[in-house]
Amino acid sequence: MISFENDYSTGAHPRVLEALAATNLEPAPGYGTDRFCASAAERIRAACADGTADVFFLVGGTQTNAVVISSLLAGYEGVIAADTGHIAVHEAGAIEATGHKAIALPEHDGKLRAAEVEAYLEGFYADANYEHMVFPGMVFIAHPSELGTLYSLAELEELSAVCRRFHIPLYLDGARLSYGLAAPESDVTLPDIARLTDAFYIGGTKCGALCGEAVVFPRGGMPRHFLTHVKQHGALLAKGRLLGVQFDTLFTNGLYGEVGRTAIDAAAELRRILSEAGCTFFRESPTNQQFVILENSQMEALAERIRFSFWERVDDTHAAIRFVTSWSTTAEDLAFLETALAATL
Amino acid sequence: MISFENDYSTGAHPRVLEALAATNLEPAPGYGTDRFCASAAERIRAACADGTADVFFLVGGTQTNAVVISSLLAGYEGVIAADTGHIAVHEAGAIEATGHKAIALPEHDGKLRAAEVEAYLEGFYADANYEHMVFPGMVFIAHPSELGTLYSLAELEELSAVCRRFHIPLYLDGARLSYGLAAPESDVTLPDIARLTDAFYIGGTKCGALCGEAVVFPRGGMPRHFLTHVKQHGALLAKGRLLGVQFDTLFTNGLYGEVGRTAIDAAAELRRILSEAGCTFFRESPTNQQFVILENSQMEALAERIRFSFWERVDDTHAAIRFVTSWSTTAEDLAFLETALAATL
Amino acid sequence: MISFENDYSTGAHPRVLEALAATNLEPAPGYGTDRFCASAAERIRAACADGTADVFFLVGGTQTNAVVISSLLAGYEGVIAADTGHIAVHEAGAIEATGHKAIALPEHDGKLRAAEVEAYLEGFYADANYEHMVFPGMVFIAHPSELGTLYSLAELEELSAVCRRFHIPLYLDGARLSYGLAAPESDVTLPDIARLTDAFYIGGTKCGALCGEAVVFPRGGMPRHFLTHVKQHGALLAKGRLLGVQFDTLFTNGLYGEVGRTAIDAAAELRRILSEAGCTFFRESPTNQQFVILENSQMEALAERIRFSFWERVDDTHAAIRFVTSWSTTAEDLAFLETALAATL
Amino acid sequence: MISFENDYSTGAHPRVLEALAATNLEPAPGYGTDRFCASAAERIRAACADGTADVFFLVGGTQTNAVVISSLLAGYEGVIAADTGHIAVHEAGAIEATGHKAIALPEHDGKLRAAEVEAYLEGFYADANYEHMVFPGMVFIAHPSELGTLYSLAELEELSAVCRRFHIPLYLDGARLSYGLAAPESDVTLPDIARLTDAFYIGGTKCGALCGEAVVFPRGGMPRHFLTHVKQHGALLAKGRLLGVQFDTLFTNGLYGEVGRTAIDAAAELRRILSEAGCTFFRESPTNQQFVILENSQMEALAERIRFSFWERVDDTHAAIRFVTSWSTTAEDLAFLETALAATL
Repeated sequence: MISFENDYSTGAHPRVLEALAATNLEPAPGYGTDRFCASAAERIRAACADGTADVFFLVGGTQTNAVVISSLLAGYEGVIAADTGHIAVHEAGAIEATGHKAIALPEHDGKLRAAEVEAYLEGFYADANYEHMVFPGMVFIAHPSELGTLYSLAELEELSAVCRRFHIPLYLDGARLSYGLAAPESDVTLPDIARLTDAFYIGGTKCGALCGEAVVFPRGGMPRHFLTHVKQHGALLAKGRLLGVQFDTLFTNGLYGEVGRTAIDAAAELRRILSEAGCTFFRESPTNQQFVILENSQMEALAERIRFSFWERVDDTHAAIRFVTSWSTTAEDLAFLETALAATL
Repeated sequence: MISFENDYSTGAHPRVLEALAATNLEPAPGYGTDRFCASAAERIRAACADGTADVFFLVGGTQTNAVVISSLLAGYEGVIAADTGHIAVHEAGAIEATGHKAIALPEHDGKLRAAEVEAYLEGFYADANYEHMVFPGMVFIAHPSELGTLYSLAELEELSAVCRRFHIPLYLDGARLSYGLAAPESDVTLPDIARLTDAFYIGGTKCGALCGEAVVFPRGGMPRHFLTHVKQHGALLAKGRLLGVQFDTLFTNGLYGEVGRTAIDAAAELRRILSEAGCTFFRESPTNQQFVILENSQMEALAERIRFSFWERVDDTHAAIRFVTSWSTTAEDLAFLETALAATL
Repeated sequence: MISFENDYSTGAHPRVLEALAATNLEPAPGYGTDRFCASAAERIRAACADGTADVFFLVGGTQTNAVVISSLLAGYEGVIAADTGHIAVHEAGAIEATGHKAIALPEHDGKLRAAEVEAYLEGFYADANYEHMVFPGMVFIAHPSELGTLYSLAELEELSAVCRRFHIPLYLDGARLSYGLAAPESDVTLPDIARLTDAFYIGGTKCGALCGEAVVFPRGGMPRHFLTHVKQHGALLAKGRLLGVQFDTLFTNGLYGEVGRTAIDAAAELRRILSEAGCTFFRESPTNQQFVILENSQMEALAERIRFSFWERVDDTHAAIRFVTSWSTTAEDLAFLETALAATL
Repeated sequence: MISFENDYSTGAHPRVLEALAATNLEPAPGYGTDRFCASAAERIRAACADGTADVFFLVGGTQTNAVVISSLLAGYEGVIAADTGHIAVHEAGAIEATGHKAIALPEHDGKLRAAEVEAYLEGFYADANYEHMVFPGMVFIAHPSELGTLYSLAELEELSAVCRRFHIPLYLDGARLSYGLAAPESDVTLPDIARLTDAFYIGGTKCGALCGEAVVFPRGGMPRHFLTHVKQHGALLAKGRLLGVQFDTLFTNGLYGEVGRTAIDAAAELRRILSEAGCTFFRESPTNQQFVILENSQMEALAERIRFSFWERVDDTHAAIRFVTSWSTTAEDLAFLETALAATL
């Protein structure tokens, strides 16, 4: 069945698979010390315009968030996130399992507002009992957010300034970063992110790789003995080459950008199709996730023809659903969807 | 450089890569709910002769040990392991990071002895202060062990009987299980392991896959809400298909056995070469890891021609080193080693 | 300086101190196995009208919450609490430090509403992605709440019914239980609490003891090996007698009730004084904590004459402050306060 | 029954109880910010001859070890201890519950040897795989040790030098410190301990207090936000005055020394009695714990007349038992023991 269910339903971009095949028999040392990882890290540093950035390859998103966040927090600190943040809702308590609280602030289109983060931090230190509370030790954002929205450069600048004023790191979850970078509406570049955050990851799993996320600590900011921390959390891949080869390929000849643009172009066409089919949009999103509201009966009829994600119940008779494009979405997939919508709505 | 450094220095067995390419564009639902995982699990149940076994796919060995052990222990319990056990030494405290103690008992050729485990358990409950101590809540063994040695069927039967007498699970780390199953000296089969343990994993990373370990809970013994536990520990792969396709291939047409036999045959030739070169064996091993003692100067000369692992310092002038074969070891590799040894010893 | 700062600013009720002195030289075995603890537990069982209740003595409130909650939750579970709940705000992340999430629901006068808890639980299991979220594994309430308010018997019955419908424990933090039981407005008794909850504690620290909280698991519900769990969390007192003697005294000749009534009577007089002084009440409270709003300048003037707690900022020129009575509040203290208020407001 | 079972079987030294009674009605702020804690800390700084030492009062020994050790270790670090160390054996995994490994080295009369610690540290950093292992992040010793033995000043100097060479803290568990300081055989003073360690605690629970341990961080070395760390671990006492008053009393007019000397004098008499009764000593101890070997039948007969601790099984027919003196041991107790021994041996 044609699927718009998510951006990880197919395998890897063909050039990634080809690179894995081409390098398969070359012996390489383990745990990320191979030449592929070194090359990928170098290409990522270049793409970030930060020659001093530390780069480390991990396997998946929840793992990356838990490993990075716990490496950057002191025991008495927690992490501020939007109440729709992945770490606050959909990671099964992975942050708490490392002993830290996720401190939820209200979301606005899936995003934190710098002024509200600042007010929280000021209020915390103004509270007479703050020593009996979890210290706000870092700020977590996702770009694109879990709702497909994007921070503007001005918004990122403000968040960064607040974090620096309070001497806490700003961490950006870039699980779908290629789509954020490729969105025409966005004025944020990879060098901007490297300049304004203290840690972030460049998503691979949802952006064309079989698996893998590239963690970047700008300005040589990787925590001491990070490799041991990663190992302790079961996140150190023996065949680090698997990650190195993939990211080396994604950052060669602009493939990471190409992956993003393909999906973003498909998303534009998807928006047109949904709009012309008369769908009400649940949220506006400039990236590869599109959300619309259907009547329950329409949703059920459509589900017999095509795969999508149920997002949330809207009322007794309506639901929000999500369509996602990726590097592997084809014109045929979109045409099929248009036909399916016409037949069911 | 020709490498005998370990069994994870090359990529995947070619048939595994081929299967990944062949299935690459088929959309599949995430998190292990795809048809490849279902098929792989079914094949593994058949290979284990346990139609009721629960099978779950994880990414790496340390991750698997930490996730499975923490899912099976109560908070007040720890895990008994040989003092050479991977979890006791080389996993950077991953077990302790989940809040549990690794209780080390003396190793004998890398193995636990059932009688010593039983004596420990009896002594524990005979101690007037046992409520102030960590309860021994499970037994961890590796097969092959970290030193390449194997439990006999009789030894496994004894350990299993002790665990069942004390109502604690027996868990077997099968990171290199294909080599153990393929060793001619061994009388232990996969159905034996499924029958005698309460949880074990079938190693993929070191046995022909790009990554992946298949956890088996015989007799429907998977802990309640294990998927959430896995997610919480950052170990749930979004593209579960990556693991499903690989294990489905490894358990089709006997590939997992073939991977093991290739390496074991190479190890037999390796032993012959080492022996004829006059090497002293550090430990006897019937599997794909072979340990010899060299003078430091010999070791250094050899290291310029071929890759191997430094194992440990023996005395001021000697060291133990390790050679490892795998599915990708070739006759040419072995011939090269023979020549290199002749040139340096 | 006369203090209405809190209910733990003086030492112990004189009869408690006398009992400690009277038993001081009698040798007793350690860790709660002494005859004082046995007697205290028996008296508490009688007071709860539950002859099968398990009783365990711990030292302080945050400790008790963390130890009890972590003993009752599975790894994949969190605890529901009001967003003003002590565990959600003022315990420095003690719950998260044991690996569990505190799931905050909106407070209503410091309390959870059964209907909202039920809706949360129903919504959780209706969510297609619930396996990727923290399971709601128990419900935490405080009685009196952190704002001094009380659950009615009907409210407790409803919460209990919801918890039983979803097979999760209801846990009640009784740090100030004596004041709740003594409040004339309350229709809730100790046997009610034992009948309707699955675990609760009878506060000692804030109710006349030097230290100590008595945890009650009604109907023999103490988790297996709880003593070891307590020890592991550093909460097992070597001289358990210290807790046993105190609670034995508090539950002899109705002292625990007397402690509560003394403070509640003082609180009634306190309310009269505050009201007649023209204070605006910040919250209505039927127990020993009274909250009023003062202008900042009034607050500062009053602070030079008497001790109270700053509670929270109301606006730029006003603050909420808290006065607390206890067993040691005297008529002279109250008269002094009346004079101080007259002089400053 | 007369008890030599341990040094925490009676209540508090009478002067401690008197001080609690005398200060009982004076209101004091909570959480250790009271004048008693301030005074006690000042007296302890003077006794340590370190005017810059940070002092913090906690409740019990296991709690103190877990809280202090976890505050001083990075996530990737563990703590070296003798394999008889309290944290390695009898604290129910409290260290592991905070995520850290207790790294056991062989004991020699209950003590670590500096040369062996140094060899372990050198070996660790010489191991090619050390990044995959738990970093040795501090050294734990008990003085007196769990077997009643004492470090000499020279031994402490050596251990301190090793720790400083490797930049890791030396932490001393002084649960029974008063007895160590009072032992005539000892050349170690409190200022020596403050000078040579990075953290230690002065035991109260086993040395005359109802409860309480005074943690000392020499040279202003208390970790940042230690109070919040303490709170998070449920170890912050609301009525901190309870600890302040006790330690203020113990360090007034030399009471802490007196408590120690009383027990040490009693232990000398105890040794004479045991020796003259023909007992074989299991271990030589210069402090208040004395260990002898009895035939099982003798042990059982003696147990009907007097309380002592079973220590460990020696062989099928013999056991090691422990007698402990304290500030409350009387000449009558000792005379009773002498008679009881005469009647049973």
